[in-house]
Amino acid sequence: MYSIVIQYVLFMLCAQNIARNIQNYNIERAKLLEEELTIQVGGNIKLSDEENVANDILMQYKQRELDEFIQNPKYFNFSRHYFTYKDDIEKSEVYQIIKRMPKGAALHVHSSLMLSAERLVALTYEDHLYACFVDDDLKLHFSVTVPQRPCSSKWQLLADVRNSTENITAFDQNLKKHFTLYSRNESDWKNDINSNWKRFNKVCHTIKGFIAYRPIRERFFYEALKEFYNDKIMYIEVRSSLPNLYELNGTVHDLTHMPRIYNKVAKQFKKEHPDFIGIKLIVTMHRAKNVAKMFEIIEVAKQLNTEFPDLFAGFDLVGQEDLGKPLMDFLPALAEVEGEMNFYFHGGETNWYGMATDENLLDAILLGTKRIGHGYALIKHPSLLALVKSRDIAIEVNVISNIVLSLVSDVRNHPLASYLALGMPVVLSSDDPGAWGADPLSHDFYIAFVGIASRRADLRMLKQLVINSIKYSALNADDKTKFITELLREWDIFIKDIITNFK
Amino acid sequence: MYSIVIQYVLFMLCAQNIARNIQNYNIERAKLLEEELTIQVGGNIKLSDEENVANDILMQYKQRELDEFIQNPKYFNFSRHYFTYKDDIEKSEVYQIIKRMPKGAALHVHSSLMLSAERLVALTYEDHLYACFVDDDLKLHFSVTVPQRPCSSKWQLLADVRNSTENITAFDQNLKKHFTLYSRNESDWKNDINSNWKRFNKVCHTIKGFIAYRPIRERFFYEALKEFYNDKIMYIEVRSSLPNLYELNGTVHDLTHMPRIYNKVAKQFKKEHPDFIGIKLIVTMHRAKNVAKMFEIIEVAKQLNTEFPDLFAGFDLVGQEDLGKPLMDFLPALAEVEGEMNFYFHGGETNWYGMATDENLLDAILLGTKRIGHGYALIKHPSLLALVKSRDIAIEVNVISNIVLSLVSDVRNHPLASYLALGMPVVLSSDDPGAWGADPLSHDFYIAFVGIASRRADLRMLKQLVINSIKYSALNADDKTKFITELLREWDIFIKDIITNFK
Repeated sequence: MYSIVIQYVLFMLCAQNIARNIQNYNIERAKLLEEELTIQVGGNIKLSDEENVANDILMQYKQRELDEFIQNPKYFNFSRHYFTYKDDIEKSEVYQIIKRMPKGAALHVHSSLMLSAERLVALTYEDHLYACFVDDDLKLHFSVTVPQRPCSSKWQLLADVRNSTENITAFDQNLKKHFTLYSRNESDWKNDINSNWKRFNKVCHTIKGFIAYRPIRERFFYEALKEFYNDKIMYIEVRSSLPNLYELNGTVHDLTHMPRIYNKVAKQFKKEHPDFIGIKLIVTMHRAKNVAKMFEIIEVAKQLNTEFPDLFAGFDLVGQEDLGKPLMDFLPALAEVEGEMNFYFHGGETNWYGMATDENLLDAILLGTKRIGHGYALIKHPSLLALVKSRDIAIEVNVISNIVLSLVSDVRNHPLASYLALGMPVVLSSDDPGAWGADPLSHDFYIAFVGIASRRADLRMLKQLVINSIKYSALNADDKTKFITELLREWDIFIKDIITNFK
Repeated sequence: MYSIVIQYVLFMLCAQNIARNIQNYNIERAKLLEEELTIQVGGNIKLSDEENVANDILMQYKQRELDEFIQNPKYFNFSRHYFTYKDDIEKSEVYQIIKRMPKGAALHVHSSLMLSAERLVALTYEDHLYACFVDDDLKLHFSVTVPQRPCSSKWQLLADVRNSTENITAFDQNLKKHFTLYSRNESDWKNDINSNWKRFNKVCHTIKGFIAYRPIRERFFYEALKEFYNDKIMYIEVRSSLPNLYELNGTVHDLTHMPRIYNKVAKQFKKEHPDFIGIKLIVTMHRAKNVAKMFEIIEVAKQLNTEFPDLFAGFDLVGQEDLGKPLMDFLPALAEVEGEMNFYFHGGETNWYGMATDENLLDAILLGTKRIGHGYALIKHPSLLALVKSRDIAIEVNVISNIVLSLVSDVRNHPLASYLALGMPVVLSSDDPGAWGADPLSHDFYIAFVGIASRRADLRMLKQLVINSIKYSALNADDKTKFITELLREWDIFIKDIITNFK
């Protein structure tokens, strides 16, 4: 009997001890989880009571969607290519909320690929448009008479070709394929990175030819601004090379003409949409070009900087990083203008590691870049990651672009997850939404928020990402303050909207 | 004239200034690169003169192979599934070098899936083996008479089925499909993660049934040791559940019998291969089971720990983490034995983030796990990553397993790249090489070294990874020292081998 009592006492002591241990364990566990939530992007944001109500609604939808993905990964599965689920995204309530969210700024978009293929097709109804179809290649050029430029088949008025077909809708559908990589046919995008870049460059080439005509460029840019504005984007930093625009009468404009046009169109757009903040221009050069060409373009950039100080933001290099020249090759030119001009370099848009491409990140940082385009490979460079954080250099992440241009297929493997977890200075952008049929920003935000960020990431992360887009813009301090004030006003309306319409 | 002189002087001053700037720039650049090289796994290893010669040879091959991948990514392309290039790996000189490298220990392998499908098929020639074929399912059981266990078609002697076919080679080829996931047919592995785990579980099930027969289990394990030994692995920590082995006369052994068998076979193997160090056992339980079952298994584990202190290493949970119970569910049982028994938990073998699966990492660490199995999701958890580093908990990375079981397709996106860059305590292992037709370790090492690590990562990284496999083993300090001494002796021979045979 006595020994049973002792055994019981010992058992109770032991059980109490384990219970106490488990209690301590749970406290320590919760502390660690909380620590990680605080570190991550948005972790320091305090939500108002109203925002908390909206956040609960948002998170209920987000968690329900994630549960569905786990249980039935066949449908709407983030492990698959964006093109397989793109058209299903609008079924998501989280997406519907994000669609209505004021998004601040788009800081990484290339001018020629901002506009949707649908709108581009509509623009081909303009008079005097000649087409040269060769296999699956298309050149477009405006001219009063048959263009005198090379075409290995023949130049025909697009209107004639279109009107001679039986089914105009089918013709336009086909035409659209020259303006976008989007396709439901897996064989179109299941190739290697170089093939996908080739397709991408072909689309670029067709569009750039088409919009080199000054009047179309004006309409093109106006429509692009409208699409971005409708996606709740109030300010855009547009990357663009400096093409020679032309007129129907044969006039060819100089390299400063396109920036003038953009400036004019943006001002017009702002007049009609007073809450639109405006645009800035990042002048780009293709990285296949040489140092001599760079000196030339930088001269024009300097001229633009003097003439349009409010428009001009800085300079960048573009094109497939793996196959193009590294920043190192341009050091003589870049070192000369360092300090005179802001850089917004692409860097590390690659899967490779220890190559010239990912080491572009090193040069971008050392050359004092204000932001890094993509920075996909930064996750493999701890010292550079630390520098990017301490120098507060924003990483412009373009998730869908990285899928379509073959860096990642399962988005959950995108390094953005770690950048968000680490509280890195991240901005989300869309690179070339027209080229993949994406929303100007909403699709990228949706995939980042539901597919990449933690299940626990909530409205605070979205708010921080929106604030980051202003914080890391090229606007001056005053303009940033005004922009943030305006944004927060719209944000309040958005919060009320969630509570009213999604409860 | 005067002004031209001034201009010239200014120009020269400016040019000198830029030149000086570029020189400083290059120094700073080299410093940063060097810093990252030092941080990464192996960065502190100093190579001997001979090792430096061997390293130059190795790196020449590595860089040549990488250049080929970039220029012609159609062939042998790391962005594709392992099964598409598995058979081409042996063409690589880097692989041939790695194949000869003494690899130390394999610390993360599951007992039933250690052996190649080829050897398994050979074992099916044993007498008294009955088969039950149902669709693409296969059950195997040894018996003197027709087995009295369920079969929805009928039990037949495998020998009879085999001898009644026209083409025995084709029959054995077909049989092999029940022992491995490897296939050249994309449709076999292009499904979602849950389908791939289903196929994987089916293979496990067939093999486990087959090797539950005691005499076959002995031969199976001996052959597995031989395959590992031939791949230059001197010590293995085997994860295994505790099955009831049976004899032809109907005897069913208790749960401690299999460990006894493994102990006996390993001792026999060591007698015949004196440089073989041995094995240890990590007892596992499927995470679909419950706490009551865990208490039961832990009791047996304790018994094994007392009876075979040299054999028993610790305890782990296995099975698809996303669909199984999280560690949290077993807290009452695990908290009770914490301190009495070492844990080697799987953790974060998932693409998800902010879910029970990746948060297993949190519990594994808090429960004092000695190593983490996979730790794929650790890259998204900065606080946990810091703890893993400061507590020196090794991450057991199994690259090919993560490809085959659908976590990653382009290996360059594997978080191992960052773990290596950060100098984390990493060990490479192969999980279930038999189930994917991989070498016991050489394929995993090759892909990690050429496909995932930096182009700049060299022999030092390989050496550190080999040393890590000993350092983070469950061996005691004395045995580790002996092992390292033996390893370094073999390493010297390996270095001479490279210099002699690959120059």
